[in-house]
Amino acid sequence: MSINNASGKSDFGILAARDDSVTSLIDQLYSADNFAKAGEAVVHLLSQYLKNAQVRSGPVLAIRPPLENIAKARESLQNNPPVDPGDMEAVTSRASALIGQFLANTQTVHHPGYIGHQLPPPLPMASLFELAADVANQGMAIYELGPWATAVEKVMVERLGVKLGFKPDSFSGLVTSGGTLANLTALLSARNKALDGVWKEGLPLSKTSPVIIAHRESHYSIERAAGILGLGSNQCLYVKSDSNGRTDPDALAELLQILKARQIPVIAVVASACATKTGSFDSLSRIADLCEAYDVWLHVDAAHGGAVSFSPEHRHLLEGIDRADSVVWDAHKMLFVPTLSTYLFYRRSRDKYFAFSQDARYLFAEGADEGHEYDCGLATAECTKRAAALSLWGILSIYGDGLFEILIKRIFETTSLFVEKLSSINEIEIPIKPEFNIVLFRYIPEHNNVDLNDFNKSLRKFIIEENNIYLTTTIYNEAVYLRFVVMNPRTDQTDVERLIENIKRHASRYEGINSMAPEAAS
Amino acid sequence: MSINNASGKSDFGILAARDDSVTSLIDQLYSADNFAKAGEAVVHLLSQYLKNAQVRSGPVLAIRPPLENIAKARESLQNNPPVDPGDMEAVTSRASALIGQFLANTQTVHHPGYIGHQLPPPLPMASLFELAADVANQGMAIYELGPWATAVEKVMVERLGVKLGFKPDSFSGLVTSGGTLANLTALLSARNKALDGVWKEGLPLSKTSPVIIAHRESHYSIERAAGILGLGSNQCLYVKSDSNGRTDPDALAELLQILKARQIPVIAVVASACATKTGSFDSLSRIADLCEAYDVWLHVDAAHGGAVSFSPEHRHLLEGIDRADSVVWDAHKMLFVPTLSTYLFYRRSRDKYFAFSQDARYLFAEGADEGHEYDCGLATAECTKRAAALSLWGILSIYGDGLFEILIKRIFETTSLFVEKLSSINEIEIPIKPEFNIVLFRYIPEHNNVDLNDFNKSLRKFIIEENNIYLTTTIYNEAVYLRFVVMNPRTDQTDVERLIENIKRHASRYEGINSMAPEAAS
Repeated sequence: MSINNASGKSDFGILAARDDSVTSLIDQLYSADNFAKAGEAVVHLLSQYLKNAQVRSGPVLAIRPPLENIAKARESLQNNPPVDPGDMEAVTSRASALIGQFLANTQTVHHPGYIGHQLPPPLPMASLFELAADVANQGMAIYELGPWATAVEKVMVERLGVKLGFKPDSFSGLVTSGGTLANLTALLSARNKALDGVWKEGLPLSKTSPVIIAHRESHYSIERAAGILGLGSNQCLYVKSDSNGRTDPDALAELLQILKARQIPVIAVVASACATKTGSFDSLSRIADLCEAYDVWLHVDAAHGGAVSFSPEHRHLLEGIDRADSVVWDAHKMLFVPTLSTYLFYRRSRDKYFAFSQDARYLFAEGADEGHEYDCGLATAECTKRAAALSLWGILSIYGDGLFEILIKRIFETTSLFVEKLSSINEIEIPIKPEFNIVLFRYIPEHNNVDLNDFNKSLRKFIIEENNIYLTTTIYNEAVYLRFVVMNPRTDQTDVERLIENIKRHASRYEGINSMAPEAAS
Repeated sequence: MSINNASGKSDFGILAARDDSVTSLIDQLYSADNFAKAGEAVVHLLSQYLKNAQVRSGPVLAIRPPLENIAKARESLQNNPPVDPGDMEAVTSRASALIGQFLANTQTVHHPGYIGHQLPPPLPMASLFELAADVANQGMAIYELGPWATAVEKVMVERLGVKLGFKPDSFSGLVTSGGTLANLTALLSARNKALDGVWKEGLPLSKTSPVIIAHRESHYSIERAAGILGLGSNQCLYVKSDSNGRTDPDALAELLQILKARQIPVIAVVASACATKTGSFDSLSRIADLCEAYDVWLHVDAAHGGAVSFSPEHRHLLEGIDRADSVVWDAHKMLFVPTLSTYLFYRRSRDKYFAFSQDARYLFAEGADEGHEYDCGLATAECTKRAAALSLWGILSIYGDGLFEILIKRIFETTSLFVEKLSSINEIEIPIKPEFNIVLFRYIPEHNNVDLNDFNKSLRKFIIEENNIYLTTTIYNEAVYLRFVVMNPRTDQTDVERLIENIKRHASRYEGINSMAPEAAS
């Protein structure tokens, strides 16, 4: 019996006897045994997906035009008759088909040729901890809603914060749904601290407009935060970078001096570790000196780079980060857990309460006389929040810190291999010496009658059409560059060679066309 | 070989030959076969958890003091030697122990006695779709990052939007990480539309401060939004409610009139469907009339109540919702999927671009000449975003719309059973006639020398200490009320009887003490 057939049978009313057939349907829907059966099937399907991806047997990017995918997704939703929840063979088969549709149309982050965005192939074990979170569905606004989830978050904040160099017992932190929300929350705290009464009264109506100062290539969430917070996105001022894409401390000093002279309040200086676009790590100690001298909140966006704190050879890139007032670090980037799991740290423990100075009595009524140190909702934007620290706690508790040491080392090695091979091509320009796993490059053909931007766009198109390597483009210094990010610890020599080969093939094809018909090509 | 032992072996350097033992460790970490083995074990563990919870064999709330849980979680993280990733027996056993620790310390939403917060026991099948999302880890800022995930989101927005009554092809929507973020995003759009140039230039510094008007018991995220957006939390004005907890339309009309006369801009009117605290559904048609007359953005927070659109008998509670400019609806509430999955709808399709009028060239460089209709990042706060519509699409594609019809009907029935039994106790006061599954009540003992707030706090404490029923308290009209929310379709007569029994036992215990020593108790 399917649900559609059954749904008319129950006679609603305060005194209605419950319809047994409905009870039985609900029992089937929630059946633990059914979950186990379907769960086994789904796990095996996903295992096969991982296997195919990892041996490069499928494409890196399984993409169809949006309207085509939408039509198919709509078809699955509308055109199949409902399945009887008790018929586990049918349920499992339908579920497998649906998940199969999803898996057949992904950006395949587990494919070693995926060197595209800053999403990692999550450790499969981490995904299993996520499943536990998805089943137990804890809430976390208050401690009671997720006692263990809250404890785990506290422990992981402590562990990662100490890794960054913060002093135990003096800092605080939280886990939130993504780097954008974390950056917003940090800047909200900074705004509320810088401008007295702003939370309750709003932005002051008669003062000079306050500003946020940011790394020139900071993530777009920083400028957006200025827009959201009511400052105005134009009030996000960018500092000149040096030739390695790092904030120029002298330029920052000059800017701070000018703003001070004009009595323009500075909400925060936002440094990048590293910059999303270029992979450049700011000189945090120099910037911290300036922020201390000018008494300005220093926020470090270490969403991507926080993880190098696990690498003895490379943690120097974060030197000075423990002097920041707030730091953002995405575990769902270089700590290899699924999205979203972002850590936000405050150097001074109590600063976390600056973001939302408000109470929610229906939530916090119980124990109103006690402290709320363990009620996450007071310091996070979310009210209902996932147990988003569980998977990182899980994998670290199994494998230990060495896990990230080797994964990050391997990522560094692979990046170096790519860069070495790329550099051996004369026509390749790498504008910024890569410090971690983000690399910009472009190809400058010998013939100079070519539009470099068009050429490099076509190069990317050619590379990804082969579908054994996926990378992206970006605009840097107003020109098109290809950009790759090594996120997969299983990316290796094969992938390096394929990228190089694809570049050469496209270039030679182009040079061929070009030398045959230079005028037609111009 | 564990990772800690191995990690020293690889010699880092640009030209370094890769350490085979490290490669082998990484292969083990990502092994699809290992995932399958551990996955089976985890699925069976979770199945057992579901079984125990559902037959009420454990507590509803497995809670220890925060510091105790933190110490245990820290111990697991620090005190165990790292496991060799190749030793799948050891890995699985450790993972099971860790997940077991989590499961032994939860707010157990699958326990039928859980009538606490607005978190559902997710349908177990929905959690398996989440697992697929957790493994494939799509990003979704741009279409390429998650082709199927994006298509599914479009289809589900379409499906749910039409369910609310929006006209196909004229509305738009998105899925985001939680109701708080969705409310913020909607009010950000409203602010940016109401105040010309505010996104870039910031709040106007010389005008009368704009306000948001909200339902008296609106969710705290609304007042927080006023604080975040720079308006000031004091600029969130609350309208009087009627005796059923609904926004009083006459009071709203009066307020709008006064604000108009004083030329104070109104960013939005926020109606509740239903109010988080009381479960009251606003008269949306009446409010929509007023918003149209005053040309003010109407935002409806239907995070909890949007789901009644699946109930033929009860969808009238949402009448007029299709006239709202924006609507928020949490699928992770009454659509029984795991957190976080929130839908935000805009009645006018293009309004979704008002929230963030900014570009992110490194993301959107490819296809810069085309439209970005399928790039989620332009309209969502998140840059990296989970495939948060997948599980709802999955379960609806399996079971059909009848699924929610019967689940919601059952929830209504159970609520009615509770209310009927509660009402039979003379000392019980139910201040608001329940319209859905949220119920406030308190016990007013015969002896009037008792502090009612203290008594009802102690009643809640007594009930939850039995650990077969979990509910919460809240403050309503400045008094303490107990509050329950029927979220579990398997909550039944047994649970109703236990609640009633617990109330009577506590009351009689109290009356006993009280009649023995009235002065000591006062």
